[in-house]
Amino acid sequence: MPINQDAIGSKGTPRTWAWDSRDALLYALGVGCGVADPVGSELEFTTENTMGVDQKVLPTFCVLAGFNAQGGKSAMSNAGTYDPRMLVHGEQGIRLHRPIPVEGEISIVDEITGIYDKGKGAVVATKAEATLAADGKPLFELTSSVFIVGEGGFGGDRGPSDKTNAAPERAPDHAVTYQTRPDQALLYRLSGDRNPLHSDKKFSDVGGFPKPILHGLCTYGFTGRALLASLCGNDPARFKAMDGRFSSPVLPGEALTINIWTGEGEDGTAIFQTVGGDGRVVLNNGGFSYA
Amino acid sequence: MPINQDAIGSKGTPRTWAWDSRDALLYALGVGCGVADPVGSELEFTTENTMGVDQKVLPTFCVLAGFNAQGGKSAMSNAGTYDPRMLVHGEQGIRLHRPIPVEGEISIVDEITGIYDKGKGAVVATKAEATLAADGKPLFELTSSVFIVGEGGFGGDRGPSDKTNAAPERAPDHAVTYQTRPDQALLYRLSGDRNPLHSDKKFSDVGGFPKPILHGLCTYGFTGRALLASLCGNDPARFKAMDGRFSSPVLPGEALTINIWTGEGEDGTAIFQTVGGDGRVVLNNGGFSYA
Repeated sequence: MPINQDAIGSKGTPRTWAWDSRDALLYALGVGCGVADPVGSELEFTTENTMGVDQKVLPTFCVLAGFNAQGGKSAMSNAGTYDPRMLVHGEQGIRLHRPIPVEGEISIVDEITGIYDKGKGAVVATKAEATLAADGKPLFELTSSVFIVGEGGFGGDRGPSDKTNAAPERAPDHAVTYQTRPDQALLYRLSGDRNPLHSDKKFSDVGGFPKPILHGLCTYGFTGRALLASLCGNDPARFKAMDGRFSSPVLPGEALTINIWTGEGEDGTAIFQTVGGDGRVVLNNGGFSYA
Repeated sequence: MPINQDAIGSKGTPRTWAWDSRDALLYALGVGCGVADPVGSELEFTTENTMGVDQKVLPTFCVLAGFNAQGGKSAMSNAGTYDPRMLVHGEQGIRLHRPIPVEGEISIVDEITGIYDKGKGAVVATKAEATLAADGKPLFELTSSVFIVGEGGFGGDRGPSDKTNAAPERAPDHAVTYQTRPDQALLYRLSGDRNPLHSDKKFSDVGGFPKPILHGLCTYGFTGRALLASLCGNDPARFKAMDGRFSSPVLPGEALTINIWTGEGEDGTAIFQTVGGDGRVVLNNGGFSYA
C-alpha cells in the first residue's frame, strides 16, 4: 500500500517563504488585475507608487506559500509513495488572521489532517499554519486536499461529503465576469508553479487536454478578486476566509464568471461558484467569510 | 547654463546589473510575447522548461541595463543640472556582440558622446559598453539620446540630422501587427522602469496625456520582436543591431504595426518604422542589422 494511512496527524518541519513588493504586483497581474481598467481600479494591487494609493496585497496571494516555501519538509512527504503525475488539486481554503504585508517572510508548518479512500483514488488533506517572521504571530492558515488517482481501494474512510456550500437554486446576488488571457498561465507561472502542464502542449497532450490548462490556483485568484471587490470594497482587511473545490480544468483565454450568493447563512458569509465560458462549474462549493 | 557642455567625452563609473531566468521571462511577457499563440510560438522566450525548447533571451532585453544598473554613477550625472521631468527619451540603439545569456551579470560604463542645441531643448547623447562578468568580454553596447525641454538656446552645435533610415515611399516587405494590452505598462514596469507616467493618471494628466502612456522601450521591445521574427527566424544570434527614434507616445491598448523594408542598403540591413493604431509614426528612422 503506497499511501501511508498512519501519516494522519503527522507534521512537516518549518519551511520559510519571503516575498517582496514586486512578487505581490506580479501575482496581482497573474490573476488578472489591471486588465479591465488599469486606471483607477485595482492600482493598490498593481502599483507601489500611485499618488494617494498605498500598495496592498491580494488575500489569495498566501496560496503561493504552498509552492514557494523552502527548507524543511512538507507533511506530504510522510504520506507514502505515489506517482506525483497522478496528483490533482482538489480543494483549497485560506484563512487570514490579518492582511498580508507588502513584503515579509513567514515560517510555515503543515500537517496531514485526513487520508480518505474514494475508491478510484485517495484524498490527502493538509492544514498549514503560517507565522510572520517579523513578529512571530500567526498570519494565515491554508487548507488543501489533493486527489491521487489510482491510490484508493484500501478500505479506508470515505471522508466528508461535498455537500457544503452548495450553490442555491436562484439567481446570484452578485456576478462578476473576468476575461482570462491566452497567455494567462505564462504570466501566472512566474509566481512559482512552473508545472509544464500549464505551458507545454506536449506535456498537456499526455493528460488529454486540448492545450495547456490554467493553474487551478489562478482561477482561485480571479475568484478571490471577485469576492474582494463585491463584498469587501476591495479592502483586504475585510477578507477573512475562502474555501472551494476544483471541479473542472480551465483553458487560458476562457471567461470566468463568479456567482455569489449572500443571505444563505450567518451574517458575513457567502456562497460562491465559478463557471467557465461554457457555463460548466470550475470551482464549486465555495464558502466565503468577510467583515 | 544648467547643461554642462564640457561634459562631452566624460564617462560614468562602472555599474553592475545581474538578471536571472525569471527576469528574462517577465520581460518577454512585458513586450507581448505569448499573447498571439502561447502554444508553440515564442515559448523559448516565455518558458524555461518546455520539452525540446531551450530558453533564449530577447535581444532588446539589454536596454534594461540602462535603468537597472546599480552602484557607480552614470555619465548623465556629469551633464549639469536640469529638471528630470523635462527629459524625454529621443533615440535608442543596441548592438549585440553575442546572444544574452539566460542569467548573468554585466559591468557597464557609459560616456557622453554629444550635447546638442535644438533651440527648444538640449539633446544629450550617450554610449554605454557592457561587459559580461563571467568572462570579462563585451556583451552589448547601448546608445541613447535624451531631449531635455527648455535647456536649448545656448548657441551649441545642432548635431546630426534625423534623415538616416527614412522609410521608403513603397509598401514594406514585412509588416507585423501586435495588439498591446490595456495593462501592458503595468506588466512592463515590473522589468524596472517604475516611472508613474506609465501607471498613475494623476501623474500623466500633468503631462497632458489622455491616460498613462506606454514606456517607449516597451514599444521598442515589441518592434524588436517583429524584426527578430521577420528577419532572424526568431534566433537571437542573428540579431545584430537596432536603432530608432521615438516620435510619438503610445497608449496601452493600441495596436502597433512594424513595417520593415529590406534591399534598401547593404545586405543584412533593413529599415523599419513602427506605427500606432491610427497610423501615426511612433518609432521612426529605424535601422536594423542582422546575419
